[in-house]
Amino acid sequence: MEQRVSLITLGVADLERARSFYGALGWRGQEVQETVFFQAGGLGLVLWSREDLARDSGLDDGRGTGFGGIVLAHNARSREEVDALLASAQQAGATLAKPAATTFYGGYAGCFADPDGHLWEIAHNPGFPLAEDGSLTIPDLGPR
Amino acid sequence: MEQRVSLITLGVADLERARSFYGALGWRGQEVQETVFFQAGGLGLVLWSREDLARDSGLDDGRGTGFGGIVLAHNARSREEVDALLASAQQAGATLAKPAATTFYGGYAGCFADPDGHLWEIAHNPGFPLAEDGSLTIPDLGPR
Repeated sequence: MEQRVSLITLGVADLERARSFYGALGWRGQEVQETVFFQAGGLGLVLWSREDLARDSGLDDGRGTGFGGIVLAHNARSREEVDALLASAQQAGATLAKPAATTFYGGYAGCFADPDGHLWEIAHNPGFPLAEDGSLTIPDLGPR
Repeated sequence: MEQRVSLITLGVADLERARSFYGALGWRGQEVQETVFFQAGGLGLVLWSREDLARDSGLDDGRGTGFGGIVLAHNARSREEVDALLASAQQAGATLAKPAATTFYGGYAGCFADPDGHLWEIAHNPGFPLAEDGSLTIPDLGPR
């Protein structure tokens, strides 16, 4: 299995609400057949009915509650950008799950939950370089 | 907010089990401070304690049950590769959530759940081109 991810599909209760939310953050996608596709670097981030997503994945239970065990991160280029992005997200309808603060690794991060509860950490991590195009390269993490 | 994802962190109950699973699929990462970092195209896929991940994200509940509402997809280059990857995953300890079958969009896909229940769709989608480096570009989806 090649070491890569092609798509991240977020199950949503209300497609229009979800699309508006990401649209308010400046994301532009293509909507087709009640599905929204955003190009996100080298992969696609997709919004689709949570119920259909569960069924399409072979599950008969589309409910699920609480923490799903996955957090997406969006690394920003500065602490100021972290603050600005968290503020934008809240203005767009997100819930602040964790206010921005200095992290154990010497960075600065906070978390929001999107309208469907999907968690995004917004982080500035000086140790994880971002390329001009936004791609992230994990550095050599040293002796372990 | 730039239109990209930097990290996908999968909360896991047993780091060694999870690392072995992805290792059996051929993924190679760096382990540091009880965290495993895999370079996955232009982002990092991270394995970390589910409990710590929940707490770090501002949640006091690390439990959560059932479908978390997110599915990752790994697009393969052929139907044969879909079958081979699903078989490898099962040999490595995954549960087949949905056997491979022709999809509504004319592709071929099946789903497995990793040892922590994280869902991966393995798909061949002739309409979504993969570059040589594995990055996916969402095509023009036509009139909508």
